[in-house]
Amino acid sequence: MPLKIKSKDQCRWDELSLGEVMLRFDPGDHRIATTRRFEVFEGGGEYNVARGLKRCFGLDTAHVTALADNPVGRLVEDLMYQGGVHQLVRWVPDDGVGRTVRNGLNFVERGFGIRAALGCSDRGHTAISQLKPDDFDWEEIFGKQGVRWFHAGGIFCALSEGTPEVAAAAMKAARKHGTIVSYDLNYRDSLWKFGNEEDFSAALGFEITGMDEHISSIEVEAFKQMIERVVKEFPFQVVATTLRKAKTATVNDWGAICYADGVFYEAKNRENLEIYDRVGGGDSFASGLIYGFLSGQGPQWAVECGAAHGALAMTTPGDTTMVTLKEVMQLMKGSGARIAR
Amino acid sequence: MPLKIKSKDQCRWDELSLGEVMLRFDPGDHRIATTRRFEVFEGGGEYNVARGLKRCFGLDTAHVTALADNPVGRLVEDLMYQGGVHQLVRWVPDDGVGRTVRNGLNFVERGFGIRAALGCSDRGHTAISQLKPDDFDWEEIFGKQGVRWFHAGGIFCALSEGTPEVAAAAMKAARKHGTIVSYDLNYRDSLWKFGNEEDFSAALGFEITGMDEHISSIEVEAFKQMIERVVKEFPFQVVATTLRKAKTATVNDWGAICYADGVFYEAKNRENLEIYDRVGGGDSFASGLIYGFLSGQGPQWAVECGAAHGALAMTTPGDTTMVTLKEVMQLMKGSGARIAR
Amino acid sequence: MPLKIKSKDQCRWDELSLGEVMLRFDPGDHRIATTRRFEVFEGGGEYNVARGLKRCFGLDTAHVTALADNPVGRLVEDLMYQGGVHQLVRWVPDDGVGRTVRNGLNFVERGFGIRAALGCSDRGHTAISQLKPDDFDWEEIFGKQGVRWFHAGGIFCALSEGTPEVAAAAMKAARKHGTIVSYDLNYRDSLWKFGNEEDFSAALGFEITGMDEHISSIEVEAFKQMIERVVKEFPFQVVATTLRKAKTATVNDWGAICYADGVFYEAKNRENLEIYDRVGGGDSFASGLIYGFLSGQGPQWAVECGAAHGALAMTTPGDTTMVTLKEVMQLMKGSGARIAR
Amino acid sequence: MPLKIKSKDQCRWDELSLGEVMLRFDPGDHRIATTRRFEVFEGGGEYNVARGLKRCFGLDTAHVTALADNPVGRLVEDLMYQGGVHQLVRWVPDDGVGRTVRNGLNFVERGFGIRAALGCSDRGHTAISQLKPDDFDWEEIFGKQGVRWFHAGGIFCALSEGTPEVAAAAMKAARKHGTIVSYDLNYRDSLWKFGNEEDFSAALGFEITGMDEHISSIEVEAFKQMIERVVKEFPFQVVATTLRKAKTATVNDWGAICYADGVFYEAKNRENLEIYDRVGGGDSFASGLIYGFLSGQGPQWAVECGAAHGALAMTTPGDTTMVTLKEVMQLMKGSGARIAR
Amino acid sequence: MPLKIKSKDQCRWDELSLGEVMLRFDPGDHRIATTRRFEVFEGGGEYNVARGLKRCFGLDTAHVTALADNPVGRLVEDLMYQGGVHQLVRWVPDDGVGRTVRNGLNFVERGFGIRAALGCSDRGHTAISQLKPDDFDWEEIFGKQGVRWFHAGGIFCALSEGTPEVAAAAMKAARKHGTIVSYDLNYRDSLWKFGNEEDFSAALGFEITGMDEHISSIEVEAFKQMIERVVKEFPFQVVATTLRKAKTATVNDWGAICYADGVFYEAKNRENLEIYDRVGGGDSFASGLIYGFLSGQGPQWAVECGAAHGALAMTTPGDTTMVTLKEVMQLMKGSGARIAR
Amino acid sequence: MPLKIKSKDQCRWDELSLGEVMLRFDPGDHRIATTRRFEVFEGGGEYNVARGLKRCFGLDTAHVTALADNPVGRLVEDLMYQGGVHQLVRWVPDDGVGRTVRNGLNFVERGFGIRAALGCSDRGHTAISQLKPDDFDWEEIFGKQGVRWFHAGGIFCALSEGTPEVAAAAMKAARKHGTIVSYDLNYRDSLWKFGNEEDFSAALGFEITGMDEHISSIEVEAFKQMIERVVKEFPFQVVATTLRKAKTATVNDWGAICYADGVFYEAKNRENLEIYDRVGGGDSFASGLIYGFLSGQGPQWAVECGAAHGALAMTTPGDTTMVTLKEVMQLMKGSGARIAR
Repeated sequence: MPLKIKSKDQCRWDELSLGEVMLRFDPGDHRIATTRRFEVFEGGGEYNVARGLKRCFGLDTAHVTALADNPVGRLVEDLMYQGGVHQLVRWVPDDGVGRTVRNGLNFVERGFGIRAALGCSDRGHTAISQLKPDDFDWEEIFGKQGVRWFHAGGIFCALSEGTPEVAAAAMKAARKHGTIVSYDLNYRDSLWKFGNEEDFSAALGFEITGMDEHISSIEVEAFKQMIERVVKEFPFQVVATTLRKAKTATVNDWGAICYADGVFYEAKNRENLEIYDRVGGGDSFASGLIYGFLSGQGPQWAVECGAAHGALAMTTPGDTTMVTLKEVMQLMKGSGARIAR
Repeated sequence: MPLKIKSKDQCRWDELSLGEVMLRFDPGDHRIATTRRFEVFEGGGEYNVARGLKRCFGLDTAHVTALADNPVGRLVEDLMYQGGVHQLVRWVPDDGVGRTVRNGLNFVERGFGIRAALGCSDRGHTAISQLKPDDFDWEEIFGKQGVRWFHAGGIFCALSEGTPEVAAAAMKAARKHGTIVSYDLNYRDSLWKFGNEEDFSAALGFEITGMDEHISSIEVEAFKQMIERVVKEFPFQVVATTLRKAKTATVNDWGAICYADGVFYEAKNRENLEIYDRVGGGDSFASGLIYGFLSGQGPQWAVECGAAHGALAMTTPGDTTMVTLKEVMQLMKGSGARIAR
Repeated sequence: MPLKIKSKDQCRWDELSLGEVMLRFDPGDHRIATTRRFEVFEGGGEYNVARGLKRCFGLDTAHVTALADNPVGRLVEDLMYQGGVHQLVRWVPDDGVGRTVRNGLNFVERGFGIRAALGCSDRGHTAISQLKPDDFDWEEIFGKQGVRWFHAGGIFCALSEGTPEVAAAAMKAARKHGTIVSYDLNYRDSLWKFGNEEDFSAALGFEITGMDEHISSIEVEAFKQMIERVVKEFPFQVVATTLRKAKTATVNDWGAICYADGVFYEAKNRENLEIYDRVGGGDSFASGLIYGFLSGQGPQWAVECGAAHGALAMTTPGDTTMVTLKEVMQLMKGSGARIAR
Repeated sequence: MPLKIKSKDQCRWDELSLGEVMLRFDPGDHRIATTRRFEVFEGGGEYNVARGLKRCFGLDTAHVTALADNPVGRLVEDLMYQGGVHQLVRWVPDDGVGRTVRNGLNFVERGFGIRAALGCSDRGHTAISQLKPDDFDWEEIFGKQGVRWFHAGGIFCALSEGTPEVAAAAMKAARKHGTIVSYDLNYRDSLWKFGNEEDFSAALGFEITGMDEHISSIEVEAFKQMIERVVKEFPFQVVATTLRKAKTATVNDWGAICYADGVFYEAKNRENLEIYDRVGGGDSFASGLIYGFLSGQGPQWAVECGAAHGALAMTTPGDTTMVTLKEVMQLMKGSGARIAR
Repeated sequence: MPLKIKSKDQCRWDELSLGEVMLRFDPGDHRIATTRRFEVFEGGGEYNVARGLKRCFGLDTAHVTALADNPVGRLVEDLMYQGGVHQLVRWVPDDGVGRTVRNGLNFVERGFGIRAALGCSDRGHTAISQLKPDDFDWEEIFGKQGVRWFHAGGIFCALSEGTPEVAAAAMKAARKHGTIVSYDLNYRDSLWKFGNEEDFSAALGFEITGMDEHISSIEVEAFKQMIERVVKEFPFQVVATTLRKAKTATVNDWGAICYADGVFYEAKNRENLEIYDRVGGGDSFASGLIYGFLSGQGPQWAVECGAAHGALAMTTPGDTTMVTLKEVMQLMKGSGARIAR
Repeated sequence: MPLKIKSKDQCRWDELSLGEVMLRFDPGDHRIATTRRFEVFEGGGEYNVARGLKRCFGLDTAHVTALADNPVGRLVEDLMYQGGVHQLVRWVPDDGVGRTVRNGLNFVERGFGIRAALGCSDRGHTAISQLKPDDFDWEEIFGKQGVRWFHAGGIFCALSEGTPEVAAAAMKAARKHGTIVSYDLNYRDSLWKFGNEEDFSAALGFEITGMDEHISSIEVEAFKQMIERVVKEFPFQVVATTLRKAKTATVNDWGAICYADGVFYEAKNRENLEIYDRVGGGDSFASGLIYGFLSGQGPQWAVECGAAHGALAMTTPGDTTMVTLKEVMQLMKGSGARIAR
């Protein structure tokens, strides 16, 4: 039974995400702890999906978030404008010093060879962690405007005790109006303070309510068995994840798997994929996968699209994709790395 | 009655400061809200004084502070190593996300012409705001090691309800061991949330306990009368401040005044001083002034030294001075801007 | 008789501009002819107005343009996303080498002191110069969606023999639906190949059809007499221009004058204004002026707002404004260049 | 029968090239469509050969080209001065906007891993595309001054309908005065608009008139058979090409083959060659090969020299070589990658 | 018989190095001979060891050196402050032009693929080459202050005819006070002007007086035999070296071996290690090895620590390590390159 | 009696200079002693004149110099290629460490406001300081090739005891063949170690043999009297100098005076000239002045041309001019700082 997705003419938005958008500080080929210069990008697990769907795949997407109203928040806004995603921002008045409300900051260095990528996030007391279920009019968004796909995730839900309620309110409205719901576990020890595996990047479960297990990337078979157990307990139509083995920070094996309606679909496995900046690879997998479903291609095409998009997104700095739909299609068709000119 | 300052052979440190050290983000000729690159420096009102006394004036100085133990805190450490000031740092374990403890961040753009310099500090929940009086062994520092001059200030005391107690504990130990105590009001609306003037940069009162008035820079006479009222109520030996009139962000009038033992000493007034980055000008005034007293020159020399050092410190990016004692002396002697080669 | 402007609830767009958006190459403190690095911005006389109204003044604006569909065009798109202006772009298929269709490029160095700013535009054969009147559905835009203010200008009309027809078609639809029309002469020798004065930056005439004179900035009186002659012949309600005297590339005198319903309104004259990058000063004057009228303030307020916004826009690199409404208001009130922190 | 090359004492120039020199824009580790900064280089298929022969191999070379006389053209001139090649430039008066005459621009990103290098050239209406056979005095150049080797190519001949005539006029004069003529097919779809293979980089045929086939790099044997067919039809003494297999943008297999007087000479095949910027690899092969013949080494040495030089040229950014003859010799001798210090 | 190392409470310094500190100029991804920009670091074979022990391993270290007192020397000082090593600098008065005294400069490019790293040092007539045995009070340093480990090396001893005497005087004082002495041969042709192998990076012999052989990295067995011959002749307790095979500038095989008390200990061999900047790898091996002995771990642990630290140090630009003890430990435990966040 | 200058058809070179070319390190808006990045340029008092005559004024010029043959020397060569001056370089074999032969380095920061520009040259033991009179074939250069104007100066003559002999040999040959000789005193304390004034930048005396006085810039009258004394003693036809008063590093008064055949010619005095980088202003004055004479304009035109060219050269970074003849002419005509586009 394929996913029943609302048609575009019923909806203002192809996709809507909910989550934090952080200011990412990138020290280039230096390290955070010794650099004298940072380049900045915007990024956030859920946001990256909306941005990828807009800028690579050409869909109309929007993002719900909150920011403190100061120059740093306005820089995040400036970066989001560049991202092209329609902004639904709750601007929280600044207190001048960052005591009561802040913007999320994310220092990430990309790693090299045996030196792993390293992140240091500074996201306490952020505007978004203080969000409440009725800060946005979900009925207006999902009912009047219309949304084909809603994407939320585990990072947002771990921000504070209140954020799961916000996600739940949004999901409830989404389901009420026939919007597909996806949820990226995106498990991080540092956020949840429990569990012990950390290396899977994106596990997409559609119409999830309470799943909080997480999956190691070690073996496809183990993963399949796990999914089979999960879907017995929870009524997921689709579950997907990337399968990454980080041989070094610079060379990864990279694959993906998608369970849909009782069948497993595997993307082509890319061995020894050259990695420039791994951050956001999983999010770009998610946006490629969602694009596959939204454009009516089957699960096999969708998982291939996700894996290819994720692979390409890791060839550039920053969390977010800089590639085009044409490039994703060419990679899916197996075109090599010949120069286009 | 001149200041009674302990001799160097009695003391390991010529000067010791107490206060926050923030990571300063500088967007160069762009603005915070639209830039894609930041250069980073370290800075902090009290710290800048210790750094200036070390790197420009060649004294042995130390700084007491606290940092969260993560790569951002280690970057501040790396910058402080560059600053050459001996570090007495309380390293607070990181929680991974910046909820319970953080490092202070300070986004500042330098302004140009009619566009004023702009700051946006993000310093809530910092390690140093959680400091307690007995986190450092003040008896060890002021008693055993010995300190000639202790410098604290209003920025630190405004960080939290607890920091004034820390400052008080340090000052008590300092006085017990004959250390001169100076206090920079460094009043900021955004920190204290009361009052309404904001443009004076440095008002040094030695052995101050509770002074919380602040002084506008408009008129020397008004300032003198105010000081006279202040010293009637409080037993200050010396009170000093810069007198700045910001015609534009790029051109300021710049002077300074120092009250000592009933007499006012005025530094040469520099009209139409060209400003590159005004931040830290007051702190460099303070370090030059303190150097004057520590080196046994009179108040007139000290206030001239402070004013010259502050003026030079505003010709370079960053909060802190990059000039040499020789350059300060040449400016005090009135040497022009001929190239030295 | 004040301008009759449609209300916001009747219109999707507060303002719509029509014109080229070029990729601006800025060599920083080097010169075009000897640099090894360029920073890039987007810019265009008419576009800058829409961008300023959006990002400084918070209005909903859109821009009609055309681009060749290649990575350079997509970079202009990426910059326009950052600009926040809704894009109505005709994407013209690329021929791979720039023979039949191109994107406009604009190399500009900002000048310093006695060395004037220098521009070198490379805008032949651009997608937009090939635009035809029916490439956009003006009835849809001005009728269905609704536009309060339409801004066009002389740069666009000089691009090719066909562009004046496009502007005329748009203006006709605008007038039909009650949209205010403004037109910036923005005269450039290099474009029109006739005339000989070049230093005025923005002459706004509302509801203009064929005005092609241009005004030197030398004297206010001469300018007033000229306007009086113009408004006798053409039915303009409002005519405005900046009055700039470039003492050096770095120091300009800067004022503005606005004629409305028979009265002249002059903005405060700013002598010796410090200039960082003069390009776009006139466009930012125009957006400030238009904001004044759109927000229902009188002509005096509008011309002051325009002059202040233009002055601030010249304190940063790039053609476009990076300031906030709050900063414009403060400058209009005469607040000095004190640091805000 | 070895090539009969004129001696140096008969000729002012060891080598003369004819072709466009473009301004290359390089976004570093970003992409063209999303960057905010470009580094610039000069480059052009034929020019790169003259530059390599001068700066790596120490020969006296000159280049014939045309440029629009504006700051961008002068930047290309500045870069060519850096290149050290004697300039024979036809400066075409600028029209101020790039309608009638322009300079060629080439936006190229270097690719990474599975993301291929990408080029976007903007070379329509350039000064050089308007060149006519008698714009240069070929008799003066080849007769009076003297040239040992003349190098032209397919890129130049594809620029306009007129450029083949210019090349023919130059070749005719060259042959008249005993100058060796080489021709790099350098086939590009985007220029010729026919054919469908694109990944060979350099196919050198000496004294070619009308060859317009092109060769895929897949198999040496197929290539040899093709050459054998070609040389039956056309009187070429030497035909050579690189053999590149782009496994990824970052790792290529790299070899070369040279047919001379009935015999095939193969350069050492370098598997898994690490590539930094592939653009210009073929041109540097050509300059190494030509150096081999000009210096009187045999075809085997020449093809090895070309392959080694090409390999080294791809380890740096920009189209052109930055290596020394000594480094080429060391690589040919098989010295490893030990540090020299 | 393990090394007898003095305890920390007897000594102010865990380690003290003696040697030159040069200003390193790094052209990034360009080459020295064609760049327009350099990034600067400080570096020096012996200094790098003290810096690594301080900043990675947290020990108290000091460095003895000399510099010319001019802005370049002060830049080296500024970089050493950043390095955190206590400075014992003899400042030699500058002559204004670099005739009688200079500071050492080291231009190094990092290489890529088949293009080897390349160094060009400019270290004649430096302040340190003029050092004399009694320029420092060795009795004060080794006797009163106390030093657990003294590190010298062949680079310093090759600087001039006088420097071996300085090293000898320091070693004599060290041995007198029970300080362990290590000596890095660090053989460079360009310095000693004899010999012919160049690719080994670090050969540590403890309490060496006159060893001047050097070891090729080719084969472990040959190396072991050589060490066995050496220790028969000289009374070394420990001899160690890295074993590097530079497949390309970007990929090396990397191992290390340590002889201690008659037994050979080998570190895990890392094949195909990805290299960003190889310079300083040997020095970081040395600091890791010394840390192992100073912290009382056995030779096996020490050689593993050295090899891991050296491997990590080559993943960042500059000569010196930017990693943490925690990262070294994780690599020793075999943790993969997963992102930490 | 006007200068008798050989015609161009008799001479290969319009002008030939003799002197050192140094690598200039520029820390931008940072200071030498605290920067982490340098931009590099080439520069040298005599060379700058040849470069200006070539790149601004379009003459054929050459430069005689010597360099050590290592990557740093090759970087200077690369920069000189960019400069477009024909190179007559004696390449001295490198010793690998800079003991016997080096290249001149010049660290210069540009100053700001009250902080003066600061230089730190490192030019001992350079290849050029070891030059001998017969290292170049002056008869070939001045006799066979032909030179219209020869320019030498005091910097070169101060490099070593031998360089005055080299200059004398060159001058002798020049005079023999009717070449005009000019000599820039360019007095620097740090080089000559005597005298005490330092702020004049260029004093041109034609056909000078032994003049070693120097002129302060204070007063035109005093300067005129001094010149009158000088020309009584020495047979100079022309003597010229700039008159600079450095109010701050950023604002100078700037004029020039030229004595020719008994008459004084003064350039327009420019008060409050905005200075970006003052270094090289005097050299650009010299090249403008020489161009005036070489192009047959009178002394008044020549001194105006020199003053204008020098003023423009100080608006860009680096020692050398980046302006065009057209810009110099416009400034001489009094055109303002309007933007050209």
